[in-house]
Amino acid sequence: MTTMVNAYAAPSATEGLIPTQIERREVGPRDVLIDIKFSGICHSDIHTVRGEWGPRSYPLAPGHEIAGIVTEVGSEVTKHKIGDRVGVGCMVNSCMECENCLAGDQQFCDSSVGTYGSVDRDGTITQGGYSTHVVVTENFVLSIPEGIELDVAAPLLCAGITTFSPLKRWGAGPGKKVAVVGLGGLGHMAVKIASAMGAEVTVLSQSLKKKDEGLSMGASDYRATSDESTFKDLHKNFDLIINTVSASINISNYLELLRVNGTMVNVGAPAEPLPVNAFALIGGRRSFAGSQIGGIEETQEMLDFCAEHGIGAEIEVIGAEQINDAYERVMKSDVRYRFVIDTASLV
Amino acid sequence: MTTMVNAYAAPSATEGLIPTQIERREVGPRDVLIDIKFSGICHSDIHTVRGEWGPRSYPLAPGHEIAGIVTEVGSEVTKHKIGDRVGVGCMVNSCMECENCLAGDQQFCDSSVGTYGSVDRDGTITQGGYSTHVVVTENFVLSIPEGIELDVAAPLLCAGITTFSPLKRWGAGPGKKVAVVGLGGLGHMAVKIASAMGAEVTVLSQSLKKKDEGLSMGASDYRATSDESTFKDLHKNFDLIINTVSASINISNYLELLRVNGTMVNVGAPAEPLPVNAFALIGGRRSFAGSQIGGIEETQEMLDFCAEHGIGAEIEVIGAEQINDAYERVMKSDVRYRFVIDTASLV
Repeated sequence: MTTMVNAYAAPSATEGLIPTQIERREVGPRDVLIDIKFSGICHSDIHTVRGEWGPRSYPLAPGHEIAGIVTEVGSEVTKHKIGDRVGVGCMVNSCMECENCLAGDQQFCDSSVGTYGSVDRDGTITQGGYSTHVVVTENFVLSIPEGIELDVAAPLLCAGITTFSPLKRWGAGPGKKVAVVGLGGLGHMAVKIASAMGAEVTVLSQSLKKKDEGLSMGASDYRATSDESTFKDLHKNFDLIINTVSASINISNYLELLRVNGTMVNVGAPAEPLPVNAFALIGGRRSFAGSQIGGIEETQEMLDFCAEHGIGAEIEVIGAEQINDAYERVMKSDVRYRFVIDTASLV
Repeated sequence: MTTMVNAYAAPSATEGLIPTQIERREVGPRDVLIDIKFSGICHSDIHTVRGEWGPRSYPLAPGHEIAGIVTEVGSEVTKHKIGDRVGVGCMVNSCMECENCLAGDQQFCDSSVGTYGSVDRDGTITQGGYSTHVVVTENFVLSIPEGIELDVAAPLLCAGITTFSPLKRWGAGPGKKVAVVGLGGLGHMAVKIASAMGAEVTVLSQSLKKKDEGLSMGASDYRATSDESTFKDLHKNFDLIINTVSASINISNYLELLRVNGTMVNVGAPAEPLPVNAFALIGGRRSFAGSQIGGIEETQEMLDFCAEHGIGAEIEVIGAEQINDAYERVMKSDVRYRFVIDTASLV
């Protein structure tokens, strides 16, 4: 028997979000029912509800940065118990059998199920975190350690893991120079995490408007990409560049900022192809790579790391009735640094 | 005191190569004088003498796939002795002090000196292997092991190391699936080397014209890229793709052939930027990388590996008077698989 819960959802690709009710499935033997406390707003929510990443089923409640409290568990659940502080990120299911799942890379499973707007393994369409409750199979429910408040934890479930994963994989740490392109929702997490990993962090932003904030998050340098001298001064300087900008930037100019064996990792993806000068790659054995969130075990590792280092997202908490305004502000990059919906406003 | 030696050189960027004489420096205390026996023709010779990679000084004798015999050594030389079988590749000098040189990556030294058309550390302009003799500092002279004839060894000094280096770095070996794009001078070496490393090798070529040859070199599969089904059949199939094609191909289509964590490495570089779909990278944590020859120690390792596995280049030996015709045939990809000049024709 399903339950109807309050939510904010888009009635169609061309309308704003409105208060509505959505269905949540009965708690199965391996399911966890979560009382959602906070739900972050990610730029991809906007792309998805507007149909910019393919057609969707409506009404659609987005939200894949979910933090809350367990209020019910199925009979076979061992990983979580009532009262636990938990989170849900961009995935709520996968086959758990393929080589990617077995390698802990559930995000690359061909059957992985997105937290909203995806067909779940039971054939229903998933609905996201802009609601009061969600039912998720225990394997995809993360533990939020003591020491991180739920509101600043919510964005870690997407923005945190999206930046933690490539930073860890490509070796950010002591003695390494890391550049973060863009100081937005993803970028500010990358700065905090890379800095906590011990790397020397430089922010590359269009202007110096947020310089003080970037430095306070742990960056040791902050340069404007609108200033041509930045690209001369920092030539062959970095071991790793995390590009959080989804707009089309001149990738080849940034590749030239990498030392030999350096890697630039895109975590955002503009719709149009990015022109890459092969000489920029060959001339320093450089790599241009992409990374997409992270696996479940790695997401837990990220949460534990953030708790240990006192890292949370910088957030602006809003009521559900402000979601549409928040979307407009996200589109204008007018947010420092993540909107988080207080779901008490949905009750 | 310099010595004049016979050579084939371009009088200008717009003229064919002609017989001439070029200067070789006196053998210094750490120099080796090599009696050149064979010199391979690389596509980059053509680009360089024609000024397509920047202006050059003329006359210019190209050639950076040099195999010969030591006939004189300087007083302080310890690495080579008279009578040794030796080779010289794409570099003849570097600073030997910078972090790249110290890491064995002399090819990325800002002061590395190309074998021809470069300003050497003494201010003279280097002249390449299309000549009877060359004087090279001992550190940049490689030993050609017994078991490889000098004619088939010559192309290893460029085509061999250019493919060996990325195959080794990105882990070609047992259990790994490697695709080689293009079966030309570089591609045929990549197939032989990757196969000897134990990888499962597939050739991706425009047509199936050279299929039998590719299979005989060690490939287990050979597919035509003109056939659309190739890209469907081989979706998410490879751990590593070595792209030896310098023309602009659809990189994003090839990236989709990589498994999670797979890498596509360009060893050729078209002049125009290559459009890369960031989703193809992000959707499998894939990398698009570049690689440029290899360091000196690694080049020696490659020669030893090739000797151990009985690997030489497939060559067509020509006299110097055929160089201009050979250039035209290289431009038309009408060579199986490398032209090698017998320098006896220059005496």
